[in-house]
Amino acid sequence: MVSYEHAQRILSALVTTLPAPEVEYVPIHQADGRVLATALHALSPRPEADISAMDGYAFCCADIVDTGQARCTIPLQDYVVAGDQPAPHNKGTAATILTGARLPTGADCIIARERVEVHDGLLHLALSDIAVGKNIRRVGEEFAAGSTLLTASQKLDWRHIALLVSQNIKQVPVYRPCRVGVIASGAEFALSAPDSRAEINTPLLHAMLTRQGATVTSRIVRSDSREDLQAAISELAEHSDILVTTGGISVGQTDNVLPVMEQLGAACLFRRAKIRPGKPFTLMRLGPVPIFCLPGNPGATAMCAQVFVLPFLRSWMEHRPTLALFPTIQGRSSFSFSALSDATGFMPVTYAQSGKEGVFSLVPSQGASDVLCFSRADGIMQVPPGQAIEIGDWCSATLFCSV
Amino acid sequence: MVSYEHAQRILSALVTTLPAPEVEYVPIHQADGRVLATALHALSPRPEADISAMDGYAFCCADIVDTGQARCTIPLQDYVVAGDQPAPHNKGTAATILTGARLPTGADCIIARERVEVHDGLLHLALSDIAVGKNIRRVGEEFAAGSTLLTASQKLDWRHIALLVSQNIKQVPVYRPCRVGVIASGAEFALSAPDSRAEINTPLLHAMLTRQGATVTSRIVRSDSREDLQAAISELAEHSDILVTTGGISVGQTDNVLPVMEQLGAACLFRRAKIRPGKPFTLMRLGPVPIFCLPGNPGATAMCAQVFVLPFLRSWMEHRPTLALFPTIQGRSSFSFSALSDATGFMPVTYAQSGKEGVFSLVPSQGASDVLCFSRADGIMQVPPGQAIEIGDWCSATLFCSV
Repeated sequence: MVSYEHAQRILSALVTTLPAPEVEYVPIHQADGRVLATALHALSPRPEADISAMDGYAFCCADIVDTGQARCTIPLQDYVVAGDQPAPHNKGTAATILTGARLPTGADCIIARERVEVHDGLLHLALSDIAVGKNIRRVGEEFAAGSTLLTASQKLDWRHIALLVSQNIKQVPVYRPCRVGVIASGAEFALSAPDSRAEINTPLLHAMLTRQGATVTSRIVRSDSREDLQAAISELAEHSDILVTTGGISVGQTDNVLPVMEQLGAACLFRRAKIRPGKPFTLMRLGPVPIFCLPGNPGATAMCAQVFVLPFLRSWMEHRPTLALFPTIQGRSSFSFSALSDATGFMPVTYAQSGKEGVFSLVPSQGASDVLCFSRADGIMQVPPGQAIEIGDWCSATLFCSV
Repeated sequence: MVSYEHAQRILSALVTTLPAPEVEYVPIHQADGRVLATALHALSPRPEADISAMDGYAFCCADIVDTGQARCTIPLQDYVVAGDQPAPHNKGTAATILTGARLPTGADCIIARERVEVHDGLLHLALSDIAVGKNIRRVGEEFAAGSTLLTASQKLDWRHIALLVSQNIKQVPVYRPCRVGVIASGAEFALSAPDSRAEINTPLLHAMLTRQGATVTSRIVRSDSREDLQAAISELAEHSDILVTTGGISVGQTDNVLPVMEQLGAACLFRRAKIRPGKPFTLMRLGPVPIFCLPGNPGATAMCAQVFVLPFLRSWMEHRPTLALFPTIQGRSSFSFSALSDATGFMPVTYAQSGKEGVFSLVPSQGASDVLCFSRADGIMQVPPGQAIEIGDWCSATLFCSV
């Protein structure tokens, strides 16, 4: 039986023993949510050339003769729009230029359209408006060619996709999704059982893990047969990077997970954890495949999945060298709570802003079997063994939106 | 030209004029990320009956005869596992019962396996352990039949799916996804253009809006032709609930969006907003279809999409009666900043915990065209017109993970 911290250390060590996920290439429009497998460097600077930040007029400051008057004129000649490769600046003239258009070589100033007047092909402007570099976006001012745009293990979203597209990148090297096998078992799930129950854990885990980018295969063994369970575990282990079982890890006659694991030759990495809910949580390994043996109570399953499986999955999918914990947020507690002396407590909480501070409130829960409580919560708060929280104390929690 | 708040009010009013999204039924395993169209009430209580919270032994307290001794014995008879419909309690006997199994009618106490001894078919237990209701999860203690489990407009994830599955619900009524049409145009996107550019905004918006659950159709008009643009807008408007255009809303010769909108008979709801970046942002309406005319600079497009399009999309998809803003988080500023006197400033910021407080740091940005800055940021901070932020001031921001 291990503490929460000890369980984390074992999982963190386990991550390092896993083979690196294979790399595959996906089209950029399918890259959202995938994890970048290599760092990506700029192939070209951005902007790619000096370009106009305005609709206006481009010329060369040195062409302007100071006549001692406040205003001057320049004949208008060329016309440049975005997409053009403009002719070099023609000395003594100005070019009409639109936003984003390439600056003619030799021009060094752009005056915004609304600052000037144009009559009979002549641009009239104030001398005081003229300055070298004005309204010009310089080549590479956002980033230079060769700069690191993204580092490996970055989970991609619209922000990164925009960057990649700016580099004309059409295919992205990403890690292939983690294949997770999820297995529930029990005679109570047989439709013919006198007291037949809906099996909650596999759809719960399927939705939770798929949202993280995993490819999930679920099996419900609708009996208490060890042979059926063994067949399901063997089959899924062959095609999974991670296995998750739920239920059947107590010592009752229908608790088949551990005997089947033993028969299959799985190694036990730890047996039970000092946590509430989730105490029966057991970690095994069958050949290269980590097996998270979660309790059968759906509340405990959900909590163990959030606290242990998701960070491990994230580490795998982002190829991180240690357990990739999700960010926490700080706030004051609006409730008092005492953790057991020998167990880390995990509770569903709501989070709200009250003035400048965040406030956590406890979501009433009926314990390990409760699934309703999660749908009322914003996240999970963690309280170390023996620790008492008083109203007003600072606490931290992981919000579901960060997970 | 409208202020940020005025723009929000116009959008909020616009939401109420839209027809309710149609309802469709999806299988529960496809419901993740969808928006519930009706409230859902419990069809059955949870637990559905009194069940055991433990592996142990069930009996009736009244059967125990107080002999004045500390321990007593009861003959063991039945055996109940989850899924069984047990026979009624047999007076004077105990039944072995596994976690989750239904309590025999008439039994009222369960003693955990580890608290007793069993010899020769007799259960030996301490009288002090006996109490009515012990280790029994009562019918409906999590929720009663008829209770409201979920309200309409709830965006579904694993938490809600678990609840629905517990009720044996196989199909869920959800709003159909919002169909968003996204159009970019410009001769610079033609592959044959002398200074050909990658078109960034449509893939950026495609990824951002799809992540929110929208069905996005993108068109890139690779010319400055008004006819091409008009054809694309007409086509997409017919099949979209919302249109988004990017670029072409200045007054240059190649800024075709407004002339085309006028030709199509679109109504202008506002022209330009007092925001930075994103000043050119214009809101139109073509028949029933709201059209967000975003600036062409990708940094400004991304900012306007985050600040205006996403809340509007969320209101549509969740059928909310007002603009559905995303939650903000509070923290101290690590930088000073002064917004223009006539524009709300939006800046990409990072967020980090420093002790008990959150700290925002400014991500350097080159302005409206910058896309790199978003990939370095955690969220967007908003500063009202004329307001100056000093180092250490409390500020609020919306984090990308909440959006």
